[in-house]
Amino acid sequence: MTRVDQKVLTDFVHDALVAAGARPADAELTAEVLVAADLAGVDSHGVARLRRYVEGLHRKTIDGGARPEIVREHGGVTVVDGHNGLGQPALCFAVDHAVEQARAHGVAAVAVRRSNHIGIAGWYAERAARRGAFAFVTTNATPQVAPAGAAEPMFGTDPVSYALPTTGEPICYDAATSIVPRGKLERLHREQQPMLPGWAVGPDGATSTDIPRVVAGLKAREGYALLPLGGLGTEYGGHKGSGIGLLAELLCGPLAGASWSRHTYGEQGADLGQFVLCVDISALGDASAIAGRVDAMADEIRAAAPAAEGVGVRMPGDRRHATSTERAATGIPLLPPVVADLAKIAELVGLEPLRTRGAYV
Amino acid sequence: MTRVDQKVLTDFVHDALVAAGARPADAELTAEVLVAADLAGVDSHGVARLRRYVEGLHRKTIDGGARPEIVREHGGVTVVDGHNGLGQPALCFAVDHAVEQARAHGVAAVAVRRSNHIGIAGWYAERAARRGAFAFVTTNATPQVAPAGAAEPMFGTDPVSYALPTTGEPICYDAATSIVPRGKLERLHREQQPMLPGWAVGPDGATSTDIPRVVAGLKAREGYALLPLGGLGTEYGGHKGSGIGLLAELLCGPLAGASWSRHTYGEQGADLGQFVLCVDISALGDASAIAGRVDAMADEIRAAAPAAEGVGVRMPGDRRHATSTERAATGIPLLPPVVADLAKIAELVGLEPLRTRGAYV
Repeated sequence: MTRVDQKVLTDFVHDALVAAGARPADAELTAEVLVAADLAGVDSHGVARLRRYVEGLHRKTIDGGARPEIVREHGGVTVVDGHNGLGQPALCFAVDHAVEQARAHGVAAVAVRRSNHIGIAGWYAERAARRGAFAFVTTNATPQVAPAGAAEPMFGTDPVSYALPTTGEPICYDAATSIVPRGKLERLHREQQPMLPGWAVGPDGATSTDIPRVVAGLKAREGYALLPLGGLGTEYGGHKGSGIGLLAELLCGPLAGASWSRHTYGEQGADLGQFVLCVDISALGDASAIAGRVDAMADEIRAAAPAAEGVGVRMPGDRRHATSTERAATGIPLLPPVVADLAKIAELVGLEPLRTRGAYV
Repeated sequence: MTRVDQKVLTDFVHDALVAAGARPADAELTAEVLVAADLAGVDSHGVARLRRYVEGLHRKTIDGGARPEIVREHGGVTVVDGHNGLGQPALCFAVDHAVEQARAHGVAAVAVRRSNHIGIAGWYAERAARRGAFAFVTTNATPQVAPAGAAEPMFGTDPVSYALPTTGEPICYDAATSIVPRGKLERLHREQQPMLPGWAVGPDGATSTDIPRVVAGLKAREGYALLPLGGLGTEYGGHKGSGIGLLAELLCGPLAGASWSRHTYGEQGADLGQFVLCVDISALGDASAIAGRVDAMADEIRAAAPAAEGVGVRMPGDRRHATSTERAATGIPLLPPVVADLAKIAELVGLEPLRTRGAYV
């Protein structure tokens, strides 16, 4: 597999976004968030998504000149309009504002409407945690997931993320509310691997493992849906997982004043919503004492009897942090279709391709 | 099955708690919360728990005279010490304070430490929703659930609840973060029904369906553990469900300044934690317009193609509300062991038994 230097890749993403019409500061931030995903091993949410952004900016379905705007504020609650710009600058603005407001009010909630795809939700939660906050971040997305009891997609794979400070790296949870994301099925399909029963349902509401049909049906949004955490029915808690997806949909849709489900992308571009909650840790007590207690609890959990030999208990974020450290040193591996995609992007916006930038390590 | 009138049952619970040493106002509230669970069909969290409360008060492991006290406040963030009183008055105080603070600050977070068992978390979230707030409520509990990768219990079955207003009854989600609660296994065991694989693990970290051993092991806290939503391993998202349980543990333990896991019950009584987040809906926009949007989204979801004939999509709380309405009219069914338990309680505290109170309908 091709390995690319982090800095060179980030610069390339930045240049491509600017060439497509993004403001330089927005391009820089968006590049950082996308490459952070590749660095952490969340390849599905990294530069593999760049083409969609570049094409959106190019076709003006994303407004490269938009700036997030505060449209409502009461105490620690703020509503931000993303004006259909890139999602990263809008949500980053919201998170930074939430951290600041949490310092003033102890706790803050910031809702974003008219926003776009935001990359990995954990990047934002972790950013807030590094500034001393407990943060909860979620976004909605186009429908892919069937709620408990339904045979058709109504919810996005809506990630839910939270993070909080420790005395070392933050604990950072970031997970789609479906059992598996669509990207995983696409990868298994490409690699001619099977999918498991209970991950998706067909139009008859029964679980399907017909991977070509499931992948095609999800893409066309016809007849197939992913299942929420807990799976089909109630025996393994499908209704519980469905309710976690619903939480994201409620916060990011009707509460944020954004669209939801089938209505998220319309003629006026995207109207995705995001929701951020921040609690300033020092409002709850001495911040370093609390970080120490978080450490103590995390250490106890890590020391639990392992489920099997070689299987340890990790804190959310442990693996992503380790992967990031390793890839920062050795380069970011890119799959051949992603390499090809980046070459096409360079051509599309008239940019020096990654290949001649001395990027490959 | 015996059916009991709601009012008579509530009065009995109140009288038993007062006789055991609770303040009358606390007894009234606690009775309301316990009976609300039976009314809603959540029998595991209703009067079946009363004996534990009465015995705790009797033995002074719960302080019937305690009053919740605000020990820290900064902006919209408050820390409450429950002083080892009943959990219901402490958490209700916290929720009411959170609603009030959310009106002033838009958003509020209230953490409770030195608290006890609180009944159903959804009761509190719904109470806040009826006062115009989005509310998130969670509590920790003694360890019963193995985190992803572990073979021993570290997390409680920690319920997570959220609620928000609609134009009708609130949407109210309330679910333990394990696939099934211990009470369900105990019931299946009594009824000589099998349990499903993937609900619990044995000391070897493998999933067990040996229901007598699992039930005994959970009770003795030896060798057996429930599994979080998503089950064993990562194939069905056990790491995702584990992270939701961890969220409850972090908020209610180290962030609230309460104990966690094995440390929740010590020589000084209980030190459970609870955490409440409230956002005043009107801080986000016009409250009735938002309720209308919530309704519109809920109606779209309810109208989704059903997974099977006779299986509809419900909003969280729909079924509990329907059951409550029905049982308020026809009486609350009590299982024979619960009827026997209530008779023993009457004897223990010297109270007129339910049987002669004209309770049975």
